[in-house]
Amino acid sequence: MGDRFDEILRSARGVLVSGHVRPDGDCLGSQAALYHLLRALGKDVSVVNPDPLSPRYAFLGEETPFGAYDGARTEGGVPPYDALVVCDVSTLERTGPLAPILRARAAPRLVIDHHVPDSRESWDATYIDEDAPATGLLVWRLARRLGVSLPLPALRGVFVAVVTDTGWFRYSNTTQEALAVAAELVEGGVDAAALYRHLFQQFPAEWPRGVATLLSSLRYRADGRLAVVSADRAALRAAGAPSFDEADEVLDLLRAVGTVEVVLVFREMADGRVKAALRSKGDFDVNRLARAHGGGGHKKAAGFDVPGPFADSVARVEEIVAREVDAWKGAGRG
Amino acid sequence: MGDRFDEILRSARGVLVSGHVRPDGDCLGSQAALYHLLRALGKDVSVVNPDPLSPRYAFLGEETPFGAYDGARTEGGVPPYDALVVCDVSTLERTGPLAPILRARAAPRLVIDHHVPDSRESWDATYIDEDAPATGLLVWRLARRLGVSLPLPALRGVFVAVVTDTGWFRYSNTTQEALAVAAELVEGGVDAAALYRHLFQQFPAEWPRGVATLLSSLRYRADGRLAVVSADRAALRAAGAPSFDEADEVLDLLRAVGTVEVVLVFREMADGRVKAALRSKGDFDVNRLARAHGGGGHKKAAGFDVPGPFADSVARVEEIVAREVDAWKGAGRG
Repeated sequence: MGDRFDEILRSARGVLVSGHVRPDGDCLGSQAALYHLLRALGKDVSVVNPDPLSPRYAFLGEETPFGAYDGARTEGGVPPYDALVVCDVSTLERTGPLAPILRARAAPRLVIDHHVPDSRESWDATYIDEDAPATGLLVWRLARRLGVSLPLPALRGVFVAVVTDTGWFRYSNTTQEALAVAAELVEGGVDAAALYRHLFQQFPAEWPRGVATLLSSLRYRADGRLAVVSADRAALRAAGAPSFDEADEVLDLLRAVGTVEVVLVFREMADGRVKAALRSKGDFDVNRLARAHGGGGHKKAAGFDVPGPFADSVARVEEIVAREVDAWKGAGRG
Repeated sequence: MGDRFDEILRSARGVLVSGHVRPDGDCLGSQAALYHLLRALGKDVSVVNPDPLSPRYAFLGEETPFGAYDGARTEGGVPPYDALVVCDVSTLERTGPLAPILRARAAPRLVIDHHVPDSRESWDATYIDEDAPATGLLVWRLARRLGVSLPLPALRGVFVAVVTDTGWFRYSNTTQEALAVAAELVEGGVDAAALYRHLFQQFPAEWPRGVATLLSSLRYRADGRLAVVSADRAALRAAGAPSFDEADEVLDLLRAVGTVEVVLVFREMADGRVKAALRSKGDFDVNRLARAHGGGGHKKAAGFDVPGPFADSVARVEEIVAREVDAWKGAGRG
């Protein structure tokens, strides 16, 4: 695996690196690592994503030039290239507005990813390992294979990729490789505590009140196996946290309760839609539930949107999820 | 280092393993690893601590027989032994009620620890490395040195020790060794996600409401560099969380705010005393502050108790800490 992939990459002079909409730490970290790997091989490299860096990942832009689709410019600002590498997603469709532009170009298309591949997409070569905890680890393996010694910004990229997708080494995909590579990254100069501060300690002052507001609405369903919290715009505004975007910590706090298997968080968006985020601690598949409502994600982390009004939609969806968790308990446990 | 230590340990038939009062994950994990290491060498081993396992660590007792000081029994229930090994603390005084019993015995006394040693204590041999992130890593090195292949319960002990003292690989003591050993532990069968669930996902149902109650009292001081929250017994009781013992997650949530350098959490105890917990994100030394109030800890995590009444004591201490953080900002930053 990877021969044709490596060959195309080696022979290209100019490489475009892209990824999925709303790029996360694994996508961006992989791209940072790949950018510096390809630069070390003497190539012209551009990174262009469908979306700009979110504030959480802005610090990565200080070491790696991340570009974003620019509808105001010709071809969205995508420069010419001899090979395209898409990171952390295996369908061009998920590059959003970039998809038609990338499809129209004649250059070979490569993908490096750890998700289940989409068989409808055609690639000139792939480097896909569904068992890898993060795409960033595949870039690390690629560098080994190509004999490239990665500079510090690339090592930081791999670290960000790995900690993003392993939940900072807490999820069940925390493999020997994930930890052993992290050890080498630290040996190479990566400062784990500094990256933690960049990624998880830059919230605005009003954020803890948003957490409190959500938590104060807590109710348990399905014999304590389901924890539900919700907050509409008025409640979040009253707490001084109208733009409460980061709910991962709330989901974590509710998962910390011993009886809880599934967590459900509702927030009212600015446009009146209701955002439902789901997490599972064990075997309950929240992705199936999210898909049934037009959303998606992974087995343990998924989400979907439904139209308002808030109270009605929350009551309806909460009831459906409670029934599912109840039924699962009966069937899966016993 | 360690020759005499290893020699005494090798020649002993019966070994007593002990540790500090209110043993934490590094102390207990080290003891679990040491117990199975010494058993593998064919020795009679007993573990007796000044306190029993707290609920968080109860699962460790399923694989390792942890004993606790029993005042009702002769000599507190400490069996005869040929060598004593104290883990994770270098002064016998910190073994609390066990100290006079252990001092009276003639058997050689060993210590394995990563804290700054107390020069007033005399040991027959020591294995101390102040640069090690956790005492558990020293037990791991000891096993290597003695050529002992550790069984799975010992590997779990080392993992618990390392994640406890590195804040699950988030603190600045997350060294190459910490991660490389963790990789070997996972290779040996340790399930990181399962241990995370044991250690951090067993809270009672009322716990999130206690978190909400504390967070809802949030105020910032010293230009947002200090975050303070407080809850008296009545507030915690109203939230259904009268025995709110675990505040680490609250401290973490407040440290997640970008401007915050120091976090201060006040809780009223059952006896009316006021418990103050302090955390620092960077260079501000909270240990110095805690010591000045008769408490202690580390530079980045410390605490102390003051007498009630709650509101008066909170106001007074908050003012003192706010002034210190203000002054530090002026002096240390510029």
